[in-house]
Amino acid sequence: MKRLLDSRSLRALARGCAVLGAGGGGDTYLQLLQALQAIEDFGPVPLVDLDELADDSLIMPCGGVGAPTVGIEKIENGGEGERLRDQLEALTGRRVAALMAGEIGGGNGLAPVAWAARMGLPVADADGMGRAFPEVFQVTMHLAGISPTPAIMTDERGNLAVFQAVSGEWSERLQRAAAAEFGGMASSADYTLTAVQAREATVRNSVSLAIRIGEVVSSAHGSPVDALIAEVGGYRLITGKIVDVERRTTSGFVRGSVVIEGLAGADADRLLRLELQNENLVALERGRVLASVPDLISVVDSETAEAIGTERISYGQRVTVIAFACDPVWRTARGVAVTGPRAFGYDFDYTPVEELADARD
Amino acid sequence: MKRLLDSRSLRALARGCAVLGAGGGGDTYLQLLQALQAIEDFGPVPLVDLDELADDSLIMPCGGVGAPTVGIEKIENGGEGERLRDQLEALTGRRVAALMAGEIGGGNGLAPVAWAARMGLPVADADGMGRAFPEVFQVTMHLAGISPTPAIMTDERGNLAVFQAVSGEWSERLQRAAAAEFGGMASSADYTLTAVQAREATVRNSVSLAIRIGEVVSSAHGSPVDALIAEVGGYRLITGKIVDVERRTTSGFVRGSVVIEGLAGADADRLLRLELQNENLVALERGRVLASVPDLISVVDSETAEAIGTERISYGQRVTVIAFACDPVWRTARGVAVTGPRAFGYDFDYTPVEELADARD
Repeated sequence: MKRLLDSRSLRALARGCAVLGAGGGGDTYLQLLQALQAIEDFGPVPLVDLDELADDSLIMPCGGVGAPTVGIEKIENGGEGERLRDQLEALTGRRVAALMAGEIGGGNGLAPVAWAARMGLPVADADGMGRAFPEVFQVTMHLAGISPTPAIMTDERGNLAVFQAVSGEWSERLQRAAAAEFGGMASSADYTLTAVQAREATVRNSVSLAIRIGEVVSSAHGSPVDALIAEVGGYRLITGKIVDVERRTTSGFVRGSVVIEGLAGADADRLLRLELQNENLVALERGRVLASVPDLISVVDSETAEAIGTERISYGQRVTVIAFACDPVWRTARGVAVTGPRAFGYDFDYTPVEELADARD
Repeated sequence: MKRLLDSRSLRALARGCAVLGAGGGGDTYLQLLQALQAIEDFGPVPLVDLDELADDSLIMPCGGVGAPTVGIEKIENGGEGERLRDQLEALTGRRVAALMAGEIGGGNGLAPVAWAARMGLPVADADGMGRAFPEVFQVTMHLAGISPTPAIMTDERGNLAVFQAVSGEWSERLQRAAAAEFGGMASSADYTLTAVQAREATVRNSVSLAIRIGEVVSSAHGSPVDALIAEVGGYRLITGKIVDVERRTTSGFVRGSVVIEGLAGADADRLLRLELQNENLVALERGRVLASVPDLISVVDSETAEAIGTERISYGQRVTVIAFACDPVWRTARGVAVTGPRAFGYDFDYTPVEELADARD
């Protein structure tokens, strides 16, 4: 066991997940409250390395599917994780050995902790993205050829849906339609895999990374934003003020755009535009791409470096936009095909954020 | 065994199902072609009485869910029934003994025959409505307290969805969302029950009734419409011409209205308006209700008495609108609550069609 996830590490985890969410993955505050309550009621949750699990241990990737704007108003009832686990065990005839975040970003990095506490299960130090992405098949398990089936969904009422889709894309369509019908947000488990598969098919140590990011930010002696940028190897795209937010909740997604106006020094008179689909997809300045998926674009409070999700961003916030490199798996040809700009309908090719930064210098 | 469903009885069945569809249940022509091909390939299908089945025999109610307008363009691939049956058997650990139409009306009265032929199974002489209704919980099994779970859906691509909903209404919402995502139409099995349950919880002998209606119409010596009206104990609401059709396909339903102008004699200058949700829900004349759900309102060709579904109705057709009594179960308080005018958002109480007719005399 790497460590016990206690209230101190959960607070750091929440900070780190928010940064790794790239605007998405759902609100971390509400998920942190649920996780803190769960470990108070049931005790801290072991964080285990994938190497500590027996090869054939069953790992259940899980989290929320839907629009983060809905997630902050429509709260889980707490029993979702057990319903997902029970159904998965009934369908596979096997016991679940550990939970794993489908995506480490946002509240979805914390949801498995609250569920695991109630079930007395460990959480694996890994996830399926190393960030958050909007669509359910945008996971490393999909790249590795792991089946999305069975994809299990449940809601706070106790409804259950199981999808055996012919592809990850069809799993996304069916899960999204169900999430929309459930009110815009639901809980899900899919791409179930064994520990031996997970060692090759996930982003490893991402829970530890998120905790470390959170600790660095909260213990920074100087500027928390500078400490954050140093920790993630990031680039400051702009420091300024939110001057425009266009955001709508449609068919289980948040979509829209945000404009940040530079406030001082070299940033004065600059305008940065972010385009959203749950996550911050692209950062544009006068039509020029400063960063794009699959690299991470995070909007953080300029004073505290607390990351702000796309569902909470609003006019007047003083923010710094940072961008940093995604996990290398997303920069492979197959990774870019699934999560690059063209996968989101943009008509330009992916360029790594560090190359874009170099080109500006 | 009551009879073997051969090509002759299937043609009669198709005619009768169209009448009992009350405009809905999907196109009978395409389903008839599929059923005829299936019995040519696999032999005729036994029609069995529920009393012939052992008490604990598992009966799978099945059919299509979605918009009839889509159903005439998006055709099944033929394997849907087996996928539904295989999944149901896997989930229950029991063998399916017979198929049954969820609704006898429209193409859904024929779909189980084509599937049963391929599987070598009989079809039960019963259904869940005695007609067609738009929503999946508008079945006699729902009134009898049979669980909709598991509700299984599949499409022509091979996708599978299983819903364990907390209510019939939630099963409808989830099935409808999936049907819409599948392109507006999908195949479904739900409200699975045993023969002993079915004897109390279904409309019995409805396949035989549909065949008899079809035979009466096709062998009529005088007017087929008069023969049809006599056979079903119906009322002629108007004979005229379709002069307006407003129809849209939205979220897995056909909705709209149709106006029929009277053509001759006492019908001259009359205008009848039908309101649709897959089925013909209400017949209105100058704001006065002539017939409404749960009673059946069918639009038939004035010459041949072939019923015309809401998806094929079009300007200029010479038609007679008839109305006749639904199965008595729908006239109970609970039946009216689930399928009466108020269940479809109308602000008036249900009055049986024969009382409405008497009031006009």
